[in-house]
Amino acid sequence: MTGTLYGIGVGPGDPDLITLKALKVLQAVPVLAWPAPLEGDSMARTIAAPHLDGHHEEIAIRMPMDVKRFPAQNVYDEAAVDIAAQLDAGRDVAVLCEGDPFFYGSFMYLFGRLAQDYPVEVVPGVSSLMATAAATGAPLAARNDVLSVIPAPLEEQDLIRRLQATDAAAIIKVGRHLPKVRSALDACGLMGDARYIGHATMGERQTVCALADYPNEKAPYFSMILVHRAPDAWLSGEAAE
Amino acid sequence: MTGTLYGIGVGPGDPDLITLKALKVLQAVPVLAWPAPLEGDSMARTIAAPHLDGHHEEIAIRMPMDVKRFPAQNVYDEAAVDIAAQLDAGRDVAVLCEGDPFFYGSFMYLFGRLAQDYPVEVVPGVSSLMATAAATGAPLAARNDVLSVIPAPLEEQDLIRRLQATDAAAIIKVGRHLPKVRSALDACGLMGDARYIGHATMGERQTVCALADYPNEKAPYFSMILVHRAPDAWLSGEAAE
Repeated sequence: MTGTLYGIGVGPGDPDLITLKALKVLQAVPVLAWPAPLEGDSMARTIAAPHLDGHHEEIAIRMPMDVKRFPAQNVYDEAAVDIAAQLDAGRDVAVLCEGDPFFYGSFMYLFGRLAQDYPVEVVPGVSSLMATAAATGAPLAARNDVLSVIPAPLEEQDLIRRLQATDAAAIIKVGRHLPKVRSALDACGLMGDARYIGHATMGERQTVCALADYPNEKAPYFSMILVHRAPDAWLSGEAAE
Repeated sequence: MTGTLYGIGVGPGDPDLITLKALKVLQAVPVLAWPAPLEGDSMARTIAAPHLDGHHEEIAIRMPMDVKRFPAQNVYDEAAVDIAAQLDAGRDVAVLCEGDPFFYGSFMYLFGRLAQDYPVEVVPGVSSLMATAAATGAPLAARNDVLSVIPAPLEEQDLIRRLQATDAAAIIKVGRHLPKVRSALDACGLMGDARYIGHATMGERQTVCALADYPNEKAPYFSMILVHRAPDAWLSGEAAE
């Protein structure tokens, strides 16, 4: 009997935003794996830490985070070999994933390497998308709005084109692309409504402000920009079809 | 001291996909409110039911679900009055919300009526979007993909335009719009990859299949269609910038 690979969404930051199902898996499995930078703490493991009792064997998947287009292939290849050895020995392995495993997560690279040979179960989690909406105190989208998640590394003209094709947008992976994002939002006449959210649900580190008031030229990894063409439309009580 | 209004995401269906934070609020508050059809059970309350111990006063918000463009204004007005009376009496009220409160949820209508006068806290939840991806066993989106959530009631030409402007799409509110959705996907050459997911995470009721194999002309309320232009791109280990 081989073990099962679990992809566990641990939620966006607040340890209490983990699900009961994720907790039950964490308590049951003997082996954890988690992504981390080359040096320092894993955010996914930090989120899960209050729920861990020390019984796990742990596999660190260490990845340079700040190297442009680093060939990550080898790191995932090696991690998949380590995880497969545990699964072959009949031991279940839970991979800790920030937010949700299948929402722009690196879990897909392990899934792609292991899902054909081993049983895999994904436990969905609260994503940063939902956490940022809760932090801003305004709906992400309503009624027949189209909501688009747009990665900031796209070219500026592509950003503009995608922003023009949607009613509401969550711009992710902002980082050093912030000046370009500001320029694209300006070009679409959307700067006035854009909101910046950093470290959503992470206690005192959480920052929410109008993007126009955000002073920096770079945004941290755990940040997002939300924008909506008709931000007050939801105040009306009219129900969607 | 007035009470606090909580918008509680109870998750997509599996009672174990509720968060610890939501559970703690449910245990602490004296009053629950939940949306329901005019007759029959509330899905949000059904999801939360295994975690309720009977100590709550409960406010049912009963809404005709199948009347086209029903003027819901009055129902939310009345519910807001009932909830405000509890808050004025210093009692906290938790509104149970399927999935996440701010992801196309009806909580926004109560929020719009009460947030100016009372403290409100939103507890984000696992949305149906993440649950359907877990159910299909494939990432929603990866790397620099644009992911769009597209409501099926849009006109067919609008559906086509929005589908053409995105890399991955989650089509929601399908219901009786399924024939139009099929036609729009066909026009975009995307039928081959479209997947149908009904009742995600709801145990034996969960259905996952190629949309081409889904035999009905209508889809249930709790269903979604996922489509991705390059569904196997995530098999590559290349990391996004």
